[in-house]
Amino acid sequence: MKTAAVICEYNPFHYGHRHQLEQTRALGATHIVAVMSGDFTQRGDIAVTDKFARAKTALENGADLVLELPVKYSLCAAEGFARGAVGIISALGCVDMLSFGSECGSIPALREAAGAVEYAVHSDYFQLLMSGGKSYPAALAEAVKKFYTDDVYDVISSPNNTLAVEYIKALDDIGSGIEPVTVRREGAAHDSDSEQEKFLSASAIRKKILAGEDYSAYAPLIDSPAADIRRLETAILAKLRMMRPEDFEAVYDAAQGLGERLFKAVRRAGSLDELYFLAKTKRYTLARIRRAVLCAFLGVDKKMLHEPDGYIRILGMNSRGREILSAAKNSGCTVPMDTSLRALMDASFEAHRLGAFQARCRDVWALALEKPLPCGSDFTAKPTILS
Amino acid sequence: MKTAAVICEYNPFHYGHRHQLEQTRALGATHIVAVMSGDFTQRGDIAVTDKFARAKTALENGADLVLELPVKYSLCAAEGFARGAVGIISALGCVDMLSFGSECGSIPALREAAGAVEYAVHSDYFQLLMSGGKSYPAALAEAVKKFYTDDVYDVISSPNNTLAVEYIKALDDIGSGIEPVTVRREGAAHDSDSEQEKFLSASAIRKKILAGEDYSAYAPLIDSPAADIRRLETAILAKLRMMRPEDFEAVYDAAQGLGERLFKAVRRAGSLDELYFLAKTKRYTLARIRRAVLCAFLGVDKKMLHEPDGYIRILGMNSRGREILSAAKNSGCTVPMDTSLRALMDASFEAHRLGAFQARCRDVWALALEKPLPCGSDFTAKPTILS
Repeated sequence: MKTAAVICEYNPFHYGHRHQLEQTRALGATHIVAVMSGDFTQRGDIAVTDKFARAKTALENGADLVLELPVKYSLCAAEGFARGAVGIISALGCVDMLSFGSECGSIPALREAAGAVEYAVHSDYFQLLMSGGKSYPAALAEAVKKFYTDDVYDVISSPNNTLAVEYIKALDDIGSGIEPVTVRREGAAHDSDSEQEKFLSASAIRKKILAGEDYSAYAPLIDSPAADIRRLETAILAKLRMMRPEDFEAVYDAAQGLGERLFKAVRRAGSLDELYFLAKTKRYTLARIRRAVLCAFLGVDKKMLHEPDGYIRILGMNSRGREILSAAKNSGCTVPMDTSLRALMDASFEAHRLGAFQARCRDVWALALEKPLPCGSDFTAKPTILS
Repeated sequence: MKTAAVICEYNPFHYGHRHQLEQTRALGATHIVAVMSGDFTQRGDIAVTDKFARAKTALENGADLVLELPVKYSLCAAEGFARGAVGIISALGCVDMLSFGSECGSIPALREAAGAVEYAVHSDYFQLLMSGGKSYPAALAEAVKKFYTDDVYDVISSPNNTLAVEYIKALDDIGSGIEPVTVRREGAAHDSDSEQEKFLSASAIRKKILAGEDYSAYAPLIDSPAADIRRLETAILAKLRMMRPEDFEAVYDAAQGLGERLFKAVRRAGSLDELYFLAKTKRYTLARIRRAVLCAFLGVDKKMLHEPDGYIRILGMNSRGREILSAAKNSGCTVPMDTSLRALMDASFEAHRLGAFQARCRDVWALALEKPLPCGSDFTAKPTILS
């Protein structure tokens, strides 16, 4: 038994994701656990399809066990996102390797880049750039460029490599024995148009789903109504309009003046796009602003990230997934794991707090459907159990 | 100089309101101050037209000074609504009479009814009916029926009389020297169809405004875009879905199990109408539920009603209105009065707290317009000053 973990959003699951799972098996994995964002995603959006349906699709296409990455991590920048997910993988105690996509496809190159990032962000030069108003990614890129070769700079400047670097850093930070392995990103590397189209980006597929267009050439069809953040537009604006300046101070990742900037932008914005546009400066990436807006809307505050989780939520599994769970227990994993949120919430005070918050976020997500689900669907939804 | 006050919502101002102002002058008033609900109204709705535009219409049709009734009072049941408005009138120190419409048209009859209400609500019989699950109005009606003649019962069971009774009670409670006078409600009393139509209800006119229909036969045309609570539907549902059971406990007027009932109804409701329907029982009137929903949405809590206001906000005036303000100052009124919310908020801690809350409520109201106003329109809107 060799267990691999993947960290994902599957928003939605597409053939590029299936390819990564196949390659992970080719690298020797007999069992695969996916840690997946639930109802809100790292680009500061809501998940376009139901998380239980996404888990089912993942199970039908190569994953064996799907665990939920809580909202407080899925709405984090790359570093917090990686730390949260690696924390879950690590808690299982039975994961042998962490498999992720990257443009460079080389662990030594990514490891060197991880060291470079670590060095760069602690340099005075980086701090100088940040206080001069650069965004985190821009300051990081410039600092790495100053201290390292172009090769290293090239590695950190590709989006998938960025996350890969954070996974390696997160594993290193906790001294984990989990081996990082990387699958080179496909798509651009292929020559024929048809092959390129096979790996249409998740973003392009989301557009098709929201427009009600056929996307079967690019992704397995998913059994879920489409959730559209535009249905929450007035709700988000109303919540932020009711917030006082000091309320923005407490919002997660609204430091470095972003909270104040958001407060001001909210005063003038009549739409979400206008809000993003007004809040945008070179200091803050659009993704960071979008995440901060959702954190403000949902009430994700700074202290939440430091609260223990108390449980690991199972969104679906097959028989091999069950074997992963047994292996986790045999490895001494004491974190409660279950498909039932109700059962998990009974485990401890921490579990109750996290679960109640997750369920409320899900209830808000459900208002983005054309026909809103009633509250409590996090308790009543049937997880996928394949034999 | 003889100054009359009227308590109103003008949602919108119509010819019935103009008639009442004319009759008030016929009763000897040389000056008229209107205390008017701002952006949210006592039936648990948003004001369909802009409060500044409504104030202007009132000034052009018989009022001399328009003051704003804060949201915390306009979202109260009749008793709190009356107390809040009478408090403002009383603070002026120069108001001679309070004029209100009533079906019965007789102050002695209303005064007797006020005494009956006072007695009835403090009776054991009333408490018994309430604990048996009756609504406040139903229990009150039954208790009055038990202790008093049919005449008294008839008085308290007409909607405008109900408010009139509360005005008289509120004046009595503070030992006010302001004389209550009443104008008999017109409309039904008229015979011809055309005359009846002249006094179309505010509710029917609101429907016409929201449907974009011509209403000029029933009310002066108002220079304001239409605000529709349906545009806030998802915002209200999202806010209430994010609330924990204990959050509902703190909501104003959510006592007697209404908070718990709202929490449960919110779980299942996919629309506002469904929410009202699910929360409704014979114990709670629909208006009370609608008000409680808005209080939960805006964060109107129980303690707010006991906080001092700190200022009186002027929405518009003419030269006679200015004379009322001078008379108020000469009578020793020390409450800051101004057309500028910014200036008022600088007056004291209490004024700042109330003003900031009012402005936030206005910012949320502005999202119910087809083209939302930016935040801060409570600071930038130009009040009407007629010479």
